[in-house]
Amino acid sequence: MKGFGSDNHSGVHPKLLQSIIEANIDHAPSYGSDVWSEKAQQSLAQLFGGKISTFFVFNGTAANVLSASAMVRPWNSIFCSDLSHLNVDECGAPEFFAGCKLLPLPSKNGKISLESLKSSLIRRGDQHHSQPKAVSLTQPTEYGTVYTTEEIRAICDWAHSEGFYVHIDGARIANAIVSLKTDFKTHLSESGVDVLSFGGTKNGMLFGEAVVFLNPDLAKDFTFIRKQAAQLPSKTRFIAAPFATYLENNLWHEIAQHSLRLAEKLEGLVGDIPGVQITQPVQSNVVFAIIPQKWVKPLREKYFFYVWDEKTFECRWMISFDTTEQDVEGFAQALTVLSKG
Amino acid sequence: MKGFGSDNHSGVHPKLLQSIIEANIDHAPSYGSDVWSEKAQQSLAQLFGGKISTFFVFNGTAANVLSASAMVRPWNSIFCSDLSHLNVDECGAPEFFAGCKLLPLPSKNGKISLESLKSSLIRRGDQHHSQPKAVSLTQPTEYGTVYTTEEIRAICDWAHSEGFYVHIDGARIANAIVSLKTDFKTHLSESGVDVLSFGGTKNGMLFGEAVVFLNPDLAKDFTFIRKQAAQLPSKTRFIAAPFATYLENNLWHEIAQHSLRLAEKLEGLVGDIPGVQITQPVQSNVVFAIIPQKWVKPLREKYFFYVWDEKTFECRWMISFDTTEQDVEGFAQALTVLSKG
Amino acid sequence: MKGFGSDNHSGVHPKLLQSIIEANIDHAPSYGSDVWSEKAQQSLAQLFGGKISTFFVFNGTAANVLSASAMVRPWNSIFCSDLSHLNVDECGAPEFFAGCKLLPLPSKNGKISLESLKSSLIRRGDQHHSQPKAVSLTQPTEYGTVYTTEEIRAICDWAHSEGFYVHIDGARIANAIVSLKTDFKTHLSESGVDVLSFGGTKNGMLFGEAVVFLNPDLAKDFTFIRKQAAQLPSKTRFIAAPFATYLENNLWHEIAQHSLRLAEKLEGLVGDIPGVQITQPVQSNVVFAIIPQKWVKPLREKYFFYVWDEKTFECRWMISFDTTEQDVEGFAQALTVLSKG
Amino acid sequence: MKGFGSDNHSGVHPKLLQSIIEANIDHAPSYGSDVWSEKAQQSLAQLFGGKISTFFVFNGTAANVLSASAMVRPWNSIFCSDLSHLNVDECGAPEFFAGCKLLPLPSKNGKISLESLKSSLIRRGDQHHSQPKAVSLTQPTEYGTVYTTEEIRAICDWAHSEGFYVHIDGARIANAIVSLKTDFKTHLSESGVDVLSFGGTKNGMLFGEAVVFLNPDLAKDFTFIRKQAAQLPSKTRFIAAPFATYLENNLWHEIAQHSLRLAEKLEGLVGDIPGVQITQPVQSNVVFAIIPQKWVKPLREKYFFYVWDEKTFECRWMISFDTTEQDVEGFAQALTVLSKG
Repeated sequence: MKGFGSDNHSGVHPKLLQSIIEANIDHAPSYGSDVWSEKAQQSLAQLFGGKISTFFVFNGTAANVLSASAMVRPWNSIFCSDLSHLNVDECGAPEFFAGCKLLPLPSKNGKISLESLKSSLIRRGDQHHSQPKAVSLTQPTEYGTVYTTEEIRAICDWAHSEGFYVHIDGARIANAIVSLKTDFKTHLSESGVDVLSFGGTKNGMLFGEAVVFLNPDLAKDFTFIRKQAAQLPSKTRFIAAPFATYLENNLWHEIAQHSLRLAEKLEGLVGDIPGVQITQPVQSNVVFAIIPQKWVKPLREKYFFYVWDEKTFECRWMISFDTTEQDVEGFAQALTVLSKG
Repeated sequence: MKGFGSDNHSGVHPKLLQSIIEANIDHAPSYGSDVWSEKAQQSLAQLFGGKISTFFVFNGTAANVLSASAMVRPWNSIFCSDLSHLNVDECGAPEFFAGCKLLPLPSKNGKISLESLKSSLIRRGDQHHSQPKAVSLTQPTEYGTVYTTEEIRAICDWAHSEGFYVHIDGARIANAIVSLKTDFKTHLSESGVDVLSFGGTKNGMLFGEAVVFLNPDLAKDFTFIRKQAAQLPSKTRFIAAPFATYLENNLWHEIAQHSLRLAEKLEGLVGDIPGVQITQPVQSNVVFAIIPQKWVKPLREKYFFYVWDEKTFECRWMISFDTTEQDVEGFAQALTVLSKG
Repeated sequence: MKGFGSDNHSGVHPKLLQSIIEANIDHAPSYGSDVWSEKAQQSLAQLFGGKISTFFVFNGTAANVLSASAMVRPWNSIFCSDLSHLNVDECGAPEFFAGCKLLPLPSKNGKISLESLKSSLIRRGDQHHSQPKAVSLTQPTEYGTVYTTEEIRAICDWAHSEGFYVHIDGARIANAIVSLKTDFKTHLSESGVDVLSFGGTKNGMLFGEAVVFLNPDLAKDFTFIRKQAAQLPSKTRFIAAPFATYLENNLWHEIAQHSLRLAEKLEGLVGDIPGVQITQPVQSNVVFAIIPQKWVKPLREKYFFYVWDEKTFECRWMISFDTTEQDVEGFAQALTVLSKG
Repeated sequence: MKGFGSDNHSGVHPKLLQSIIEANIDHAPSYGSDVWSEKAQQSLAQLFGGKISTFFVFNGTAANVLSASAMVRPWNSIFCSDLSHLNVDECGAPEFFAGCKLLPLPSKNGKISLESLKSSLIRRGDQHHSQPKAVSLTQPTEYGTVYTTEEIRAICDWAHSEGFYVHIDGARIANAIVSLKTDFKTHLSESGVDVLSFGGTKNGMLFGEAVVFLNPDLAKDFTFIRKQAAQLPSKTRFIAAPFATYLENNLWHEIAQHSLRLAEKLEGLVGDIPGVQITQPVQSNVVFAIIPQKWVKPLREKYFFYVWDEKTFECRWMISFDTTEQDVEGFAQALTVLSKG
């Protein structure tokens, strides 16, 4: 049964599964010395337009916390949004892996501002105080909103002027690129982002994410960081091959475009239903809305989704690569029926 | 090209890949609440004959070090073999994750003895000295040899009498079970093993291992240990479904039996070749042998393998699920040719 | 030169130094097996009225973070005030030692409320979210204010009902006891506090703090936690002897009473000076006040102190055991002169 | 009662205690910004003859493990002797603080050799294997023996040629300098040592050790490493003042000379007693000897000491700054009596 629970409730995109089947021939060197890894790394280098360094890991938590380990030492801290996945959904993994401190900042529609970063920067050089060294932004945010290229660039410029690195949690980064009608090079490389968690799992892959160092100096020790963190896949070809396919013929763009279009369609269909209040700008593959509490149960029986805020009954409706026009229309129809009592 | 490099150079067993393809339908709850996880857990429970607790993780390093995290606190130490994977091939992951100390013991053919365990047990309760709390055995060992059920049981009995836990690094555990003509329940559950890293990747899976707590008390906090360690797979069904298939109709037995037989065949074919000296008892899917240094290069050009000891030129020839009679015969033939100069 | 910078700018109280001199005889067993340690532990047991477990460590950071290590595992989190020493003045030590997460709550006059604790308690049992396991309160707070016995008890009752522990950062705990006209047993033991960092250094000792487990179950592994954390003093007698003296004949009470009285005197003398605005209730050995920016430099040339808030020019004036009536009068006089411009 | 248990069973040297008393005046800035710290740091700089960087910490465990934290990252390992304090007497503190791995090497009379270092260096750059980055030597060793300046220099030269750092655990370093009739500059600075744990506690101080970075590049982040590790003393003057006194007028030399002379005297007096077998060269303030098991109890009733090896009854007799000629003579006399049955 399909629903709007999460873009990891869906399975594997047929083309990505096909790439696994095709990579399943003979023997291949393990731990990333295979030809599929080389190909995927080349595709990524082309996408980002320069000298980058790419490492595959198993999941998004790993991509984020190992990026943190590459950027900071234990006495450092990392600015992030108060509701960032890094802060509230990793069970304390950043603190555990990097030994560091997170500095959660208040967010608006999921985004933090340059102003709040600047005003939170205190006690530089004071040995009693954990020293900031990095900023982590989620793009698109946990609310599906996106930072503009100008916003990313301004934060990077400021961060670098302070000696900080910038990390992007891009579990759904392709969706932001498509939403902003930009490209990876312009949006990330040229803005000065240092390291990106490039998401695969939530975009139709079976598993696997790429840690992409746009600032390759940061990658110096990453082979050891990854191995010691139990994130070195042995049969890497089965992550690399889907990544290569994802980047070929703009499959990434096609999937993200599809998801964005259906999210906008969903917003259009339900936005005017009495009782439904869209709460966040729809800028990627998700719609957030408050609905009457009594609608939740009957609606979830038809289509699974998460209640994001148990107090306000703000709900999250997530589009996947395999969500169809019919799914969206059926969901809107179910809401319409509920609204008519 | 196929070789004898490692059982993770091979790809995915056709039946296991098929199980992934079949699990790729519709949406499924993420993080292990899916029906495939339930099925695989039930099959494991049946295999081990009792109340166990199973958790899927991405790879063998994780299975081993998270087992360690479940058994010990940072001021504890873990007995293991001096050449165990845990000690020499995890880039310090046990120390990093569990904060603990490893106590490597001298090994013979890869095995440690109850006697050396007993004699290494010093300074109990001395606050200056890291306190032993667990024993980790690799079964089969890194040299392919196996502990008998009696040996496992004796070590477990002693360990428990001292208040220690016993962990088995079972990256290739099925091979030991077949080699010993025993079963999981007799060999592990009834011997008193507390936790097992049940390997999948080296037995034909795409990825994924199971941490099997035969002592379910140890599993109490493992959901949090796993998540904080970045080892909670989101699309768990794609690890669970192959595991279920692996356990169905004794596929595990078939694969291990095949590998063992070909290893024995290889031993038989090359053991008498002048210049080849078999160095370890062949008890699972691997043959270790010393060959003349000058043979290494020409032989590796035909069949990749690892030189295990750069000083003695002891080599490791590993059989995979997809190794064929012809591969083994061809390899023996190549050795014969070399031996004739 | 004396000032109002901190109660660790002062040296060693004469009676406490004398106790060190007197303990400097012959040889004594190291690492806490000496008679002074026994005596100090007995005095503490008497003070707290029950079965407690006491461990000496070097400093306050250690007392706090090792208490944390005793209470939580890495996937746990600890509630504390947003401006607690634990959160902002330990350079990330709690995250580093315990691997855990801090959950800073908004504070009023340095205190957090039971209401904010209750409303911050979310996602119990959710493996993606760090699980709260402890509350840490600073008593007196970083602003010198005190929690009443009723407030402590209510927080303990709630915490225990949720399965949480309660820690008190008592770097200046004696000042709170005197301010509240209560005793250690009533205020802490009977309220249900689990573990206390009992401060010595800021109360006239040369160095050393006691970690007092009122809940002795928590102390089970503490000898190892302490040693592994590099906090086991070898010549423990020189921490223990001063602690014993501090507790004898109520020296602790005398010092705290003196400090409290002078803080109140300072408040009385400066509270009405035009331009001086007392910002926090004076409930222990410190006065917080906003003064005009231009007064800061000339005033600090006579008496050192810290500007607590660089934006509002809220200043902290801290009383030590050796602050005199004349010091306070001289300081007030200097302020009066400045106010007359 | 005095004995031969340890040089931390003795108390505080009168001159060092006097320096504490004299430093106990007025207020002083905390955390190392005081005049005593400046003076001690200057004296150390003079002693080592160059640009060094010094940090005071509470104890020897801290000096050693924080030196480790400055030298390595978690995926690194440190060579040390199999019986080094670092390896067997810190309850796993190096692994806990630095997250790294220790590589214990076999020792002879407590010393490791350049040859064993060289032959243990394997798998450079292999991501599966923890990468060596430092060598830690104890000088004098746990057996009281000393490395010659040439030995230290040869190990440093080799280490640096491999990109490794060299740390000296110098809990009793002054004793080695006196024993070798050398000086700190020649023996340590000019040999190329990178960082030294300069012991105070075991040489008559109340507490406190100095971490001396002869390679000041290593000190870059040490203020944060120290603070986060709970090792920043607030009233630093009470560690710094004794250190300054210890270095003035060669008090360090006087104490070490006294201890060495009495150790040699003890060796001379007991070496020929039938039943006593000196087991280690006497090169600093300790004598190791095997005695008949039945002598242990009566001898320890008169003079406390440790049985070092419970199997061979090798005993350790440690000289302190306050050990007298009479103590040594009395002890030898007691042994003589025992030998006569």
